[in-house]
Amino acid sequence: MTDSESAATAQAARSSRSGRGGKRERLVRAAVQVFHEQGMEKTTLGDIARTAEVPLGNVYYYFKTKDLLVEAAVDAHCAHLDALTARLDALPDPAARLRELVAGWVDQRATAARFGCPFGTLATELVKRDDGLDQVAAKVMRAQLDWVESQFTQLGRADAAALAVELVAAHQGLSVLTHTLRDPGLMAAQGERLQAWIDGIAGR
Amino acid sequence: MTDSESAATAQAARSSRSGRGGKRERLVRAAVQVFHEQGMEKTTLGDIARTAEVPLGNVYYYFKTKDLLVEAAVDAHCAHLDALTARLDALPDPAARLRELVAGWVDQRATAARFGCPFGTLATELVKRDDGLDQVAAKVMRAQLDWVESQFTQLGRADAAALAVELVAAHQGLSVLTHTLRDPGLMAAQGERLQAWIDGIAGR
Repeated sequence: MTDSESAATAQAARSSRSGRGGKRERLVRAAVQVFHEQGMEKTTLGDIARTAEVPLGNVYYYFKTKDLLVEAAVDAHCAHLDALTARLDALPDPAARLRELVAGWVDQRATAARFGCPFGTLATELVKRDDGLDQVAAKVMRAQLDWVESQFTQLGRADAAALAVELVAAHQGLSVLTHTLRDPGLMAAQGERLQAWIDGIAGR
Repeated sequence: MTDSESAATAQAARSSRSGRGGKRERLVRAAVQVFHEQGMEKTTLGDIARTAEVPLGNVYYYFKTKDLLVEAAVDAHCAHLDALTARLDALPDPAARLRELVAGWVDQRATAARFGCPFGTLATELVKRDDGLDQVAAKVMRAQLDWVESQFTQLGRADAAALAVELVAAHQGLSVLTHTLRDPGLMAAQGERLQAWIDGIAGR
């Protein structure tokens, strides 16, 4: 998952300007942000209400439980991934798409150093719960792997699935290290190595 | 960090048999286990007391707060890493040491699929807290990177630091994917690729 939580929230923001669903969308955007910044388990409905500037009493009208907000946050990550891959698919060349994906990770390195990967850290918390929401997290991770795999397939690689795991795992692992060591430079340096690796696979 | 939480807890178990510190060591071992299985934020002192089979009232004698147990758990991970690298250092060849490190990750794939990396998931939670304990987590991650870097340096690589980040990030990322997708086979398949990558670097 790309680190651009900002993009996911921007998308929620766009929806909120459409009028009706305003408060609901603000709550989802706040949930994505607060889960990312302080972790899902520690977050209360009150934290989300405060960030969304929605009275707590109103939150229950839209989301009866925190779990429903967690689900909506995962849906927002999913929608963000769809928007990102649609944008990348407009590039004519699979190697260019993968390079652009990596460039996006590098762009978000300051955020990764502060809060980690917005989707990866949420998935890590969800999967420890083992209560059904872990399956939703797996679906989003799987969607990203599938998209990356299809790029490597288009590059003629028989081991496209393994290469996709390698690239997505590199991003997740670099997010963990960048975050733990609070070192955005680490993502930048490794991003260059990943770009060279993609070029090598594309035979440039 | 290797996935062998079992090794970290075994070490705590050995200490506990030494007599005096018995209850304290049982509590630390239980903390490592429960933090790994259900996450640190969700865990209460009561959960740890129950797993350690120590009355809750006794816990406060050893650890006044949960944070002190968190710190002791990070120390246990640190001690486990020291023990692991001491064991690997006994191998005469740096490539063999790195291969053995990767083999250990693959051995722990079932645990990774259930609970993720015991140290990586704890670090991810700690670093979101930003209260000083994140620095302790960074120290352990840095120690692992330094050890791996020294192996690549011994293999004559000028980019040893970058290669170390690549290998440790691969493990952390594969742990996130193996965990999120609940697929131990993914760690096994990628472990083989990492072994081949190490062989390539060692010029075999």
